[in-house]
Amino acid sequence: MNINDDHGTTVVRRDTQFKPKSSWRSWLIGRPLPTADAPHQTIGKLIGLAVFASDALSSSAYGTQEMLVVLAVLGSSAYQYVFPLSLAIVLLLTIVVISYEQTIHAYPNGGGAYIVSRDNLGDLSAKVAAAALMTDYVLTVAVSISSGVANLVSAIPSLLDYRVILAIILVFLIMILNLRGVRESGAAIAIPAYFFIVSTLLAIGVGLYKYMNGSLGTVVDPPLLETAHLTQGVLAFLILRAFSSGTSALTGVEAISNGVPAFKEPRSKNAGITLIIMATILAVMTLGIAFLTSQIQAVPSEQETVISQIVRTAYGNRGILYLLTVTSTTIILILAANTSFAGFPRLSALVAMDGFLPRQLAYRGSRLVYSYGIVLLAIIAAGLILVFNASVTRLIPLYAIGVFLSFTLSQTGMSIRWRKIGRIIPGGFLKERGSTLSYEKGWGFKMVINAIGAVLTGVVMIVFAVSKFTQGAWLVIIIIPALVILFSGIHRHYKNLAGDLSLDNYGTPPQISRQRVILPIGGVHRGTMAALRYARTLSDDITAVHVSIDPEETEKVRQKWETWGDGHRLVILESPYRTFIEPLLEYIDEIDEMRQPKELITIVVPEFVPRHWWSNMLHTKTASTLRMALLFRKDIVITNIPYQVD
Amino acid sequence: MNINDDHGTTVVRRDTQFKPKSSWRSWLIGRPLPTADAPHQTIGKLIGLAVFASDALSSSAYGTQEMLVVLAVLGSSAYQYVFPLSLAIVLLLTIVVISYEQTIHAYPNGGGAYIVSRDNLGDLSAKVAAAALMTDYVLTVAVSISSGVANLVSAIPSLLDYRVILAIILVFLIMILNLRGVRESGAAIAIPAYFFIVSTLLAIGVGLYKYMNGSLGTVVDPPLLETAHLTQGVLAFLILRAFSSGTSALTGVEAISNGVPAFKEPRSKNAGITLIIMATILAVMTLGIAFLTSQIQAVPSEQETVISQIVRTAYGNRGILYLLTVTSTTIILILAANTSFAGFPRLSALVAMDGFLPRQLAYRGSRLVYSYGIVLLAIIAAGLILVFNASVTRLIPLYAIGVFLSFTLSQTGMSIRWRKIGRIIPGGFLKERGSTLSYEKGWGFKMVINAIGAVLTGVVMIVFAVSKFTQGAWLVIIIIPALVILFSGIHRHYKNLAGDLSLDNYGTPPQISRQRVILPIGGVHRGTMAALRYARTLSDDITAVHVSIDPEETEKVRQKWETWGDGHRLVILESPYRTFIEPLLEYIDEIDEMRQPKELITIVVPEFVPRHWWSNMLHTKTASTLRMALLFRKDIVITNIPYQVD
Repeated sequence: MNINDDHGTTVVRRDTQFKPKSSWRSWLIGRPLPTADAPHQTIGKLIGLAVFASDALSSSAYGTQEMLVVLAVLGSSAYQYVFPLSLAIVLLLTIVVISYEQTIHAYPNGGGAYIVSRDNLGDLSAKVAAAALMTDYVLTVAVSISSGVANLVSAIPSLLDYRVILAIILVFLIMILNLRGVRESGAAIAIPAYFFIVSTLLAIGVGLYKYMNGSLGTVVDPPLLETAHLTQGVLAFLILRAFSSGTSALTGVEAISNGVPAFKEPRSKNAGITLIIMATILAVMTLGIAFLTSQIQAVPSEQETVISQIVRTAYGNRGILYLLTVTSTTIILILAANTSFAGFPRLSALVAMDGFLPRQLAYRGSRLVYSYGIVLLAIIAAGLILVFNASVTRLIPLYAIGVFLSFTLSQTGMSIRWRKIGRIIPGGFLKERGSTLSYEKGWGFKMVINAIGAVLTGVVMIVFAVSKFTQGAWLVIIIIPALVILFSGIHRHYKNLAGDLSLDNYGTPPQISRQRVILPIGGVHRGTMAALRYARTLSDDITAVHVSIDPEETEKVRQKWETWGDGHRLVILESPYRTFIEPLLEYIDEIDEMRQPKELITIVVPEFVPRHWWSNMLHTKTASTLRMALLFRKDIVITNIPYQVD
Repeated sequence: MNINDDHGTTVVRRDTQFKPKSSWRSWLIGRPLPTADAPHQTIGKLIGLAVFASDALSSSAYGTQEMLVVLAVLGSSAYQYVFPLSLAIVLLLTIVVISYEQTIHAYPNGGGAYIVSRDNLGDLSAKVAAAALMTDYVLTVAVSISSGVANLVSAIPSLLDYRVILAIILVFLIMILNLRGVRESGAAIAIPAYFFIVSTLLAIGVGLYKYMNGSLGTVVDPPLLETAHLTQGVLAFLILRAFSSGTSALTGVEAISNGVPAFKEPRSKNAGITLIIMATILAVMTLGIAFLTSQIQAVPSEQETVISQIVRTAYGNRGILYLLTVTSTTIILILAANTSFAGFPRLSALVAMDGFLPRQLAYRGSRLVYSYGIVLLAIIAAGLILVFNASVTRLIPLYAIGVFLSFTLSQTGMSIRWRKIGRIIPGGFLKERGSTLSYEKGWGFKMVINAIGAVLTGVVMIVFAVSKFTQGAWLVIIIIPALVILFSGIHRHYKNLAGDLSLDNYGTPPQISRQRVILPIGGVHRGTMAALRYARTLSDDITAVHVSIDPEETEKVRQKWETWGDGHRLVILESPYRTFIEPLLEYIDEIDEMRQPKELITIVVPEFVPRHWWSNMLHTKTASTLRMALLFRKDIVITNIPYQVD
């Protein structure tokens, strides 16, 4: 305890003894962590990769297949496009990663598309980026859990009827895991994530080795091609669609750059290295799978995934290694949702701190994670799963538009940033909004890279929006502007409020020189006497008010008041329609009109407090109702005198 | 306005100008009625018959059929039992009606089984009677609506999937009708009720006429007897079960005797006459249908009701008169639920006035009916329909045990009453509990009638309970005692409360001589200043308390308080776990321990009031949370200073 008395005000600082108690909450999500623990609640590169990369890596499990589905109409000549397209995707990935690598070092407090847009393009772009990313984070959860459950259901068909509830349970399990804190959820997710990485890389390695010595061959007993789903169209359009189908891997890139503060110090460096490792693994997997797909002539099918065909061809059988690889793929599809649980709450906290979302989202819960954001994400994703009946086919067209829109904005922002840096004299610096810019060599090259990235991701986004428009993408095109309008409304509210509450130009109002007390009474009992006793400390001008519904009851109140009311006025309000609040409000209005500037009206309400919560149902909650009704009146104060019954 | 100053206390009586506004509520249930309108909100015999008799009369539509189902195992000799059994039922009805006729005159304020048991047998029997009756009223709604919907669905099979939601919608429509007041619901129900009475009596009349001139014959193309449902058993047991199946008509008798105050003056006379008219119609219908059933040899079947067979045989074809009669039967089955809506709310209001149920049930709503009871009945009945999937077969075994239990109690009570009257010397009287008993001639005969009634209804009740036990009746046998325990618990609560609140032996506590004010502040703004301004009127001993979660924020608060805090103490509570309420409660506890007897602690909480309700979601409701947490502490008063933002 220290006392500080420099300005004539006594300020006492006290440590709180409060220790959180064990409860069902601490059982579920772990005991509360003190704020001072925050530096220990960070993660290294090893766990960081598992937390943020699951989504990106899992997409390699279906990216090539999605590409083949689009190209299947070309027949066997489809295979000639698969590897070049994958190369193009890896090139795009490289550009995006280089851009974000720069962003991570420029914004060590977390800087995804939202921060970069805000600092370089302005508020509107920032809001669009946030809306786009949040939409996509929610969709990632819905899509990845639904596709994981779909995989599970195709293995165990008896679960088919329960797939919606199963998917929703999984969402809430991952929510609880994340509420336990980033370290714990990271540790839980690391094992299956590395299991997936190792088993997939091994299968690719074996496949390539067999290709080298000429023993790979093509897939044995390929599944039938479902010609019903063939997409028709001009070649250029098909290639663009195939390209965009293969690019859904990029969501995780954004998540790392937003999540820089989750890493151990030096956090920018750790996050940056993690991003490069992730991109490298992703590139190897994408290219390896694409190459093997063409070589073995895998067939896109609902019955067997392309990855399954590759793995069994590489191993030459459906043995234990095959089973392990396929199982780990199913698990990683479900855990891909975890990346969103790492990304969404951080992003919404950043947006909330800027006043575009409810402030609660910036509040760190008992385990030092943004609990409100985690719960909000789970609720919205579960709602989506329910509405879309856990159907991947219906959810997928909504997906990935948002993330590419945010990439476009982010890279445009970075280009503009380089342009500004280019204008600084060498060795100088420029202070602007959130960040300090200093001259950097090679800005021109970096600007070009970002500009190319912006154009490429912009094209992909437009291709997505146009080609999927009628299948549901129109919904995203409505939701993003709607969210932007919501952000603006919330921001306006907070801004107006801050203005209204500001003490600038605060003319001190007249001191209160007298109070007038109104004491609403239903009966005359000990609770009433406690309220009267309190009212006396406020003023001598006390009026008890009884609303008369039953004349017999009123007569009793009148008689008792004469005995116990100590000479104070009693006003009886007739209530012909048996309502209680309305006659009282009418009376208060009347008193209010005659009020003097220095006079204040206090309503002293006896509030009976039963011992058990359920007893509340046996009483009309007059005190609460009255408080709600009077809340909006100026200069009327409501005082509750709780009267506990033992 | 009149001023009454006889005891030194000023009492002002004021009429309220408040006129209820038009709203969606008044559109739905009509404009509010003043209490003074109550005498006009009564009904005559004509509407009274429709309101209270629908249930009883509708049961004649299926009573004989239920009897035949039980007797079907006897083959064609079944018909020889139908008419004698119906005669026995009419005899039972006569005894019950005579008993209730006496009750209606003895208890002009409404006296069903509950009142009669309370006044003559004691509280426990009264509670059992109330529990039994309330259970049965709820079941009547569920059964009659479900069977009405089942009739509808067999006519329009495409509605089959919607039968649960259809039944629930009908429950709430009848609820709204009843919320509009007894006059309006009575007028609405009168037309279909009289339509049913007239069309059924006409069909019976035509049938009897044809029987007289020998042209009736037997039913043409009778439906097949479903032998699968045949009940096996000894003859005596079969006859008892058939008897009890035919007696479900008697529910309505209870409803009239409870509803005496709903009738126009002279209300006992009007209610009594209505009861006799109802019983007469019911007897004619029951005997007529039983007689014709035997004559035409109608077959009990799921495909065609017995009543349909009688009507088409009487008219000789399926013409317009046949269709009208069958349609009116379906409508009356649904409207039978209305009798419960007339009975249940009145009964629960009586029980609530005695303190066995929440007091709100005794409150008359804007249309002078017991709105809470009406809504409660609708909700429970809808819940039952949902749980039992609107299945009449599963609901019916639960039905009618309650009403016969209450008849037994009621008639036992009446017998005891006659016994007491018999002990009074001729011309004398006896004051006892609720009623004044005076000598009446013929008490012995009346006592015997009631005793026979009690034994008969008791036997029926036991037959019901035993024969339907495994089919669901056990549920009723659990629910009734559970309700009795609930009633006792509620009564104990109200009684303890009255004792705790009583001013008998009230030692005036010491006057409050000083207040200590605690002012929790999140920031320093206009709302804080308004609260501080108010706090100053209470005491000079003011402590502002700030819970510190973010050190930067706390530093701002400290600096601002030095400028604006007018020299009052500021206590900063460190909150290592980022909780707000707990450190504050700990601090208040500490202050509380040091409190002097004449000192009172007031917590003055600035409460920010946004203009729009939705803005509430953008703010943490600290004021409300704090109030909830402090409600249970003694001698701590919470004052909210609402600060409205424009």
